Amino acid sequence: MSEKARRKLAVAAARKAGVGVLLITHLPDVRWLTGFTGSNAAVVLPANGAANPILITDGRYTAQAKQEAGDVRVIIAPKSAVIAACEWIAKARIAKCGFDDGNTTVATLKQMQAVPFKFRRSIFQPVGALISTLRQIKDPDEICKLRAAAALGCKLFDSIFDHIVPGATEAEVALALEYNAKLAGASEMSFPSIVASGPRSALPHGRATSARLPRRGFVTLDFGVVLDGYCSDMTRTVHLGRPSDDERRVYDAVLEAQEAGVAAVRPGTTGADVDEAARSVLRRAKLDKWFTHSTGHGVGLEIHEGPRLAAKQPQKLEAGMVITIEPGVYMPGKFGVRIEDMVLVTKTGGEILTPSTKAWIEL
Amino acid sequence: MSEKARRKLAVAAARKAGVGVLLITHLPDVRWLTGFTGSNAAVVLPANGAANPILITDGRYTAQAKQEAGDVRVIIAPKSAVIAACEWIAKARIAKCGFDDGNTTVATLKQMQAVPFKFRRSIFQPVGALISTLRQIKDPDEICKLRAAAALGCKLFDSIFDHIVPGATEAEVALALEYNAKLAGASEMSFPSIVASGPRSALPHGRATSARLPRRGFVTLDFGVVLDGYCSDMTRTVHLGRPSDDERRVYDAVLEAQEAGVAAVRPGTTGADVDEAARSVLRRAKLDKWFTHSTGHGVGLEIHEGPRLAAKQPQKLEAGMVITIEPGVYMPGKFGVRIEDMVLVTKTGGEILTPSTKAWIEL
Repeated sequence: MSEKARRKLAVAAARKAGVGVLLITHLPDVRWLTGFTGSNAAVVLPANGAANPILITDGRYTAQAKQEAGDVRVIIAPKSAVIAACEWIAKARIAKCGFDDGNTTVATLKQMQAVPFKFRRSIFQPVGALISTLRQIKDPDEICKLRAAAALGCKLFDSIFDHIVPGATEAEVALALEYNAKLAGASEMSFPSIVASGPRSALPHGRATSARLPRRGFVTLDFGVVLDGYCSDMTRTVHLGRPSDDERRVYDAVLEAQEAGVAAVRPGTTGADVDEAARSVLRRAKLDKWFTHSTGHGVGLEIHEGPRLAAKQPQKLEAGMVITIEPGVYMPGKFGVRIEDMVLVTKTGGEILTPSTKAWIEL
Repeated sequence: MSEKARRKLAVAAARKAGVGVLLITHLPDVRWLTGFTGSNAAVVLPANGAANPILITDGRYTAQAKQEAGDVRVIIAPKSAVIAACEWIAKARIAKCGFDDGNTTVATLKQMQAVPFKFRRSIFQPVGALISTLRQIKDPDEICKLRAAAALGCKLFDSIFDHIVPGATEAEVALALEYNAKLAGASEMSFPSIVASGPRSALPHGRATSARLPRRGFVTLDFGVVLDGYCSDMTRTVHLGRPSDDERRVYDAVLEAQEAGVAAVRPGTTGADVDEAARSVLRRAKLDKWFTHSTGHGVGLEIHEGPRLAAKQPQKLEAGMVITIEPGVYMPGKFGVRIEDMVLVTKTGGEILTPSTKAWIEL
């Protein structure tokens, strides 16, 4: 049971934070710890590893909770799962409960504090994204699922070229990607697909629109699937017709930057180091002023997770992290290029999970 | 400009709440007030209606903000929009800033409070979902868009029957709905489509799976589109093959309950009244114990908005609200039926926006 091993890590983290129990309400954290995928849930995890964790949900999920999270104690509550969890904590006379202040609203905390506790004022202690931090290191089961999601992304890219023709709309290209993704078993896309063509390729977040693909110009495709709960994320930029010298030069520079970023990946390197490895290539090509975002982010149950790969990020990479490397150059009104891989941090370096070609593609 | 009229309502609400400015960070609220659709934004709305509202976003959205929200002052900030907004508020020496405590995390409030203010401790006053409450009453522009979204939903339902055949998977039916929705201009589905067949129709939230449609049994379709920012939501339950007497009886009871709910809609009626109108029909048929959720909710820029239509909900309906009426009966392990319309509250009653037939459909 992967979940059991994960809960051991969580118990150790809770103990280190000095709390009697952890209250977990962020749904990807709940899924990671218990396997439960319902939309209303809270987990109470005693820092005393001997006691069983408790999953609280509502009557819609009675059967599903037993099936997915059979090895934890399930409580079905008619009300909000987080409030029911607090009532359980109050009854158990816990003195200190850690909660994720980055995923708890001010209004919810007020409701939590309104439950009559023994030591009411001081019981709730913000511990930040403690579980999400643990989730940055993927276990073998997760790496297997991320590999499968990334491979599906590649398969979709490799079979999309027939749809990338002048006059087709960006939305039609996105729809073909999504249709094929779902036929292949994806539950959904991991984010709204970006298909940005011609001058729109200069928009880092150019969601597919009814704009028609030009006879000449770049088309940037940035998309991902959710397969078995895990997200993929990749970007390729292809060219319709003959490029200008400037377009070729920018593409080659972005590709060199992306490969330099991938090459810098290894345990012990910081997010800032990897960012600088990619950014310095663009600086030498005098293109860095057009690289207006960070170099990458973690991927897993959520499309955007830690770590961040950006300037001044001191966090070190560790084996088992899965990250994106995605430099880009965006010249407003003209064109843009972005290339992105998912990369697994191994014991000795980085392994690309999205091996679709990054060579110049001219359609 | 609809947005201008909406801001007038917001200014009046801010003044009533006794604050100098409102800080708005919930993105559907930002869109409603300014037209801006970007993913990082905050609005500072002075309760002194004379002063211009300020929209804060980041460099990715410079062009888009000017285009979509041209009539408000736009500030491009390199950092978090909400923190940049707080710095502006600090400089303006505002004494009291209202914020939405239901959409602000504990961690974010702490960051907000770390901005050096003149009257630091007391400046932030939780005012709840003040803008979302205003958004419950739709203006003519919004009603027009909701009509169009609902009409697209009906068109999709009316053309899906060829896909509802024994042996097809639920996911294939959902995919056909979604494919046609996007071809027709929907930007996305308003929630993951529910296609629940045979015994799975007894799951109120049975997202489409790889389960195959049976030769005999119910298929519940609950789905919606997002068109021009506005959501649709509708449910129909059809039957494959000849039904049992029990299935027919339950369908007729749910339909009668749904129609009683719709008939109860008019300004001045409470959410509890409408819920009771539907629920009492099922009680008379001795089926109410299987109706395990509430009767409906508001729909607009978000798929779930106020008001709630449920037992003990004292809020009165008002003309301009758009709500769902969606009773259901779910017999675990056997079958389930749900029927749902979107209904506009008019001055005199309710107008169904999703007129697809609710008659018994046998395929």
